[in-house]
Amino acid sequence: MLKLFYAPNACSLASHIALAEAGAQFEAVRVDTKAGEQRQPAYLAINPKGRVPALVTPRGTLTESVVILGWVAQTYPDAHLKPDGDFYAFSEMQSFNLYLASTIHVTFAHLFRTTRWADSESAVAEIQAKVPSSLAEQWKLIEDRFADGRPWVCGQQYTVADPYLYVFARWLERDGAGGSAAMPLTRAHRTRMQERAAVRTVLAAEGLEPL
Amino acid sequence: MLKLFYAPNACSLASHIALAEAGAQFEAVRVDTKAGEQRQPAYLAINPKGRVPALVTPRGTLTESVVILGWVAQTYPDAHLKPDGDFYAFSEMQSFNLYLASTIHVTFAHLFRTTRWADSESAVAEIQAKVPSSLAEQWKLIEDRFADGRPWVCGQQYTVADPYLYVFARWLERDGAGGSAAMPLTRAHRTRMQERAAVRTVLAAEGLEPL
Repeated sequence: MLKLFYAPNACSLASHIALAEAGAQFEAVRVDTKAGEQRQPAYLAINPKGRVPALVTPRGTLTESVVILGWVAQTYPDAHLKPDGDFYAFSEMQSFNLYLASTIHVTFAHLFRTTRWADSESAVAEIQAKVPSSLAEQWKLIEDRFADGRPWVCGQQYTVADPYLYVFARWLERDGAGGSAAMPLTRAHRTRMQERAAVRTVLAAEGLEPL
Repeated sequence: MLKLFYAPNACSLASHIALAEAGAQFEAVRVDTKAGEQRQPAYLAINPKGRVPALVTPRGTLTESVVILGWVAQTYPDAHLKPDGDFYAFSEMQSFNLYLASTIHVTFAHLFRTTRWADSESAVAEIQAKVPSSLAEQWKLIEDRFADGRPWVCGQQYTVADPYLYVFARWLERDGAGGSAAMPLTRAHRTRMQERAAVRTVLAAEGLEPL
């Protein structure tokens, strides 16, 4: 059986929702990142990067949200969690997911994990203070995508890109991130997400409230 | 015909090499990032993110190195640029590529594009000074991967992960990055890369020297 290592409200929430939407048989294992469990030898043996998510499969362990999301979408075709069509359509979805991973997530990390990049109190404060304006600028591409009235990231088709966006749409409300007032289409997407049974089930499993 | 937008020695070098290795028919279009061409309307119409690479295909434009590399590997199967096997094997390769994109590339960006995250001279200097130690720490996973004597990232099989690693192995020698003295297996990989005809052709096309 698949085993997903996650931390509540971390980016692993996307993989957690994707597995639930796929109807996959899996066990969700909570990692206590606040206590530093992800840097202990037991967890590093699972994922040497010391991060969540990690998905243990019969073939081996996959890491990185974008990869796990893509694998779930490909492995459970009956759940239709990727755009219908060929590998180009899949790639277009993954291009959006990469933007979340390498731009949006990275900007949030400067708020939550600032000491990866600087140590002095003044530099840390300066880096954190810049995050809301960076997010507002970077988020324009996401709002633009929904400007045609589409309900989901890839159009009419719900895909694994939707729970991934949902993670960061939640993070907009965290202290210091600046809120989502300037992202009305993302807020509407977040509401649509929370109407889905799989999302509500996973939020309850992680001890989270809808926003 | 495919059209690749690139800047010399940028991360687009990986996609450039991958297309050459695939034997694809493509046109390489240089973007003058030093003059800010990537932020001009003409280029933003191609890639609204204002970054390279962008690959124009008959179906549309793909962005993000990891996605372009995956698409090339899947689209030119005769070139064997992904691990033999199923989608799990492909995902494992992409997991490595995601580490390069969302961890290694991001760390380098703190050296070259520091003002994305802070503005004061003191904070910028502090962020840049931390880069070499961060790279040394993050690179251990890459060196560990080659510890079994494998010639390529995914084992005996050369894949698109190899030119992607090669980009960052080159960047280790850029001012302020700390050099590659502590990464002997990566240096050996870099040398192997530069023995390949496609790599030498692309280096010449971008006006670069082997390192």
